[in-house]
Amino acid sequence: MGEFDLIARYFTRPPRHATLGVGDDCALLSLQSGMQLAVSSDMLVEGRHFLSTTPAAGLGHKALAVNLSDLAACGAKPLAFTLALALPSIDEPWLAGFSKGLWDLADAHGCELIGGDTTQGPLNICITVLGEVPPGDALLRQHAQVGDDIYISGTVGDARLALEVFKGAVSLEAAHFEAARLRMDRPTPRVELGLALRGVANAAIDISDGLLGDLGHILQRSKVGAVIETAWVQDSAAISDAMQSVAFNKRLDFALAGGDDYELLFTASPDQADEVLEAGERCGVSITCIGRITPVAGVQVLDLQGLPLSRRFASFEHFAH
Amino acid sequence: MGEFDLIARYFTRPPRHATLGVGDDCALLSLQSGMQLAVSSDMLVEGRHFLSTTPAAGLGHKALAVNLSDLAACGAKPLAFTLALALPSIDEPWLAGFSKGLWDLADAHGCELIGGDTTQGPLNICITVLGEVPPGDALLRQHAQVGDDIYISGTVGDARLALEVFKGAVSLEAAHFEAARLRMDRPTPRVELGLALRGVANAAIDISDGLLGDLGHILQRSKVGAVIETAWVQDSAAISDAMQSVAFNKRLDFALAGGDDYELLFTASPDQADEVLEAGERCGVSITCIGRITPVAGVQVLDLQGLPLSRRFASFEHFAH
Repeated sequence: MGEFDLIARYFTRPPRHATLGVGDDCALLSLQSGMQLAVSSDMLVEGRHFLSTTPAAGLGHKALAVNLSDLAACGAKPLAFTLALALPSIDEPWLAGFSKGLWDLADAHGCELIGGDTTQGPLNICITVLGEVPPGDALLRQHAQVGDDIYISGTVGDARLALEVFKGAVSLEAAHFEAARLRMDRPTPRVELGLALRGVANAAIDISDGLLGDLGHILQRSKVGAVIETAWVQDSAAISDAMQSVAFNKRLDFALAGGDDYELLFTASPDQADEVLEAGERCGVSITCIGRITPVAGVQVLDLQGLPLSRRFASFEHFAH
Repeated sequence: MGEFDLIARYFTRPPRHATLGVGDDCALLSLQSGMQLAVSSDMLVEGRHFLSTTPAAGLGHKALAVNLSDLAACGAKPLAFTLALALPSIDEPWLAGFSKGLWDLADAHGCELIGGDTTQGPLNICITVLGEVPPGDALLRQHAQVGDDIYISGTVGDARLALEVFKGAVSLEAAHFEAARLRMDRPTPRVELGLALRGVANAAIDISDGLLGDLGHILQRSKVGAVIETAWVQDSAAISDAMQSVAFNKRLDFALAGGDDYELLFTASPDQADEVLEAGERCGVSITCIGRITPVAGVQVLDLQGLPLSRRFASFEHFAH
């Protein structure tokens, strides 16, 4: 099977919304009149973003999920994506699994594969996702305001917990491990929540590298600081049963610096507290308030007694050795 | 230097046309009212698409050029692009060269870098380019008509010729080698010509895998066939001095199956012959008629006497072993 057969068999469907899909030099797409285009690209590399043991379907899901998560963090509605894929060889069972995971998530969000590229090379998956958002409605990192509450969606730390089990650093009972592994391999992009937070949240980002590190991007671009409490790490909707089963100090590490959660971290005025919780309820996802925006640069993490913690939390860093 | 410093130093500039550029979860872009979006992604892998000896600036140029060439083949105007880059390590001289080559070509076409991703991994460059085109004006592979003339822009075969010199299969005098190597490392995307051919050409594609192979895509999608002559390979504006210096049979191979030329291959009604040549003159690029579209499926290549050639020409195939 050659490149073109591979594309035809695993990555081609008739276009739906797109004017022209896979199979020409470019795809053609029309936006709704007056809408802005939102664009994001993510590249996934074996050993950096996923383990060689990751099942192919999970990888197809995750590669698109991390991109949809970027649209969610901007409050943009998914439209379409391109897929560029370098493969060491043509492995049909792998391609069948990968494309199944990809299509299932794409269909769930009405997000259409419109083009891309395949080539031989070390395994590399690069997706560029396109969405639309009304002008002025996008949730940006730069709009956090002093006094805003800081929220997270869903649960955090589980993906890191699963990774630590794979590394042999933590052991879990089977059901907890399975739950945590699913969070690592099958993250849920919070697309509906992102849309529901338009006009409600001031700033947003998705948690990919680690909560504190990603919060740092909001603080830097908004030129503000933050205080983060930790009582919620002890007991709240943001901590899963799997996370509850490990010691508090580890939990703190995984929740604040874990990465790969693909939950939304966002800020909103205290006036909007009801609307924030309603948005979560409407989307079926828990929302937890974890701190607030301050005028003082940097992040202060408070312990259970409300005293500043001096320990450091290291986020995921792509070029760390 | 970490990922974020790297992006800040080499890949960030203030946005110009984009509403929001590098540095948030998504970039935001507005199209001109009523325009369609044209999208293309290409992934370049060392050893497949470029040699390890390719200078970094050339690689920055080429990575964007092959994407702009896809827009050209659709008659779309370049707007913006994303860059996803996997790097084995942070090599600052390499990054300086690569980004210089990239920016120079981007600036020449007013095409803005609006986002992307960097990660550690085997060298891989994935660019997604965005352009715009009025609805109905895009040049598509599927619109070739029986009786159309088939044209190519510029010169073909030079990139393959340079590759053969690198492989030691051909030797050239220094000036010819340098000219051919430049065509391989610094292809010229025919963006202006693509725009000039709107409303003039019926179908178009860029020559990336090889003239006959790429022509095959037009024929397949348009459900037509073609006759290709070879007199132009003996002597025409499409054959460079470097190509003239090798034996006719080799020249035939390189011109018809070489790949990596990034010239446009297009078809147009004989009624449009004057407009085609005028478009070339206006854009400063030679145009050569090489054959015509027929109702009979397949491609017939005619020798200098006008008799069918029986030899096969193998296009570049990404998964060939």
